[in-house]
Amino acid sequence: MTRWGPDPRGRLMESALELYAKHGYDQTTVAEIALRAGLTERTFFRHFADKKEVLFAGSDDLRDLLVGAVAGAPPSAPPIEAVAAGLLAAGAAFNEDRRSFSMRRQSIIAANAELRERELIKLATLASAIADTLRQRGVSEPAASLTAEAGIAVFRVAFHRWVDASNELGWSELVRSSLAELKALVSP
Amino acid sequence: MTRWGPDPRGRLMESALELYAKHGYDQTTVAEIALRAGLTERTFFRHFADKKEVLFAGSDDLRDLLVGAVAGAPPSAPPIEAVAAGLLAAGAAFNEDRRSFSMRRQSIIAANAELRERELIKLATLASAIADTLRQRGVSEPAASLTAEAGIAVFRVAFHRWVDASNELGWSELVRSSLAELKALVSP
Repeated sequence: MTRWGPDPRGRLMESALELYAKHGYDQTTVAEIALRAGLTERTFFRHFADKKEVLFAGSDDLRDLLVGAVAGAPPSAPPIEAVAAGLLAAGAAFNEDRRSFSMRRQSIIAANAELRERELIKLATLASAIADTLRQRGVSEPAASLTAEAGIAVFRVAFHRWVDASNELGWSELVRSSLAELKALVSP
Repeated sequence: MTRWGPDPRGRLMESALELYAKHGYDQTTVAEIALRAGLTERTFFRHFADKKEVLFAGSDDLRDLLVGAVAGAPPSAPPIEAVAAGLLAAGAAFNEDRRSFSMRRQSIIAANAELRERELIKLATLASAIADTLRQRGVSEPAASLTAEAGIAVFRVAFHRWVDASNELGWSELVRSSLAELKALVSP
């Protein structure tokens, strides 16, 4: 429980997750989140644009990690290997410290249609960003879009397995095994 | 121009597409669509729940065609081949008569964030339905989800190519070539 710790942002996130899980996302107000964290609404809005952003604040970092690694893969890497490098680099956002937050976040998102839609949009935006980066690497269409979409399919499956309560594997292992499975499935 | 033809549903769709393209989706009202079709609002609501449904009325038929063919593939078919059968069966909804409607619909959707989100949700729902059907065929996880997502990646790319103004290929050819390309990309 970090809620009375010195980090106001972490306290706000913790309070928001607790309230979303307890009362539901729709029923929770920013005022309640701030109160529970022992902070003011004004402080909340210094850290987050709204109560949804508590759950999606990491999206830009994730995109930058992923796209940066796709862009930085050796020029000779085939498109799928550049995307694999991106997915592995995303592991910096999915370390063991983060897993408990992600598991709790996931069950809140699963319970709310608006949040599920926002998550879909996040992943579609990620797929577009990967496809753009592949095109900048000289990959033509439709190869860039197909590879980006396949990468997002691997991402979804690896992430779903990572946040499963029974999972004991790390992000890299999950990405590698999901990608290997996709290869086996697509070319049976 | 079928707008003064005998089919009220077709007239409403044509009027809606014309108005969405001319004035924008947000700026168009059901009253204006009905007026342009020479019909009443009451008639509009007998055919469509709201103005968005004019653009998404075919979603259930598409899902039924696709999922029906995945379920009906020979029991021995590998998962990706069952999904390919589904994608090919979807061609019944994507014949040459439909293409002009789909092209106009696509440019309306591309211009509006709310409609783009609705389209993403439609495709995510389709992916879930395919994964469910594969599990009913005895495919385990994560294979069912990975194959379904790969299938939707092929669907997206084939559809995008199909509605491109310069495209001269039919749906089946686009599905087969997009799937072949995905296979080549994933196992380089």
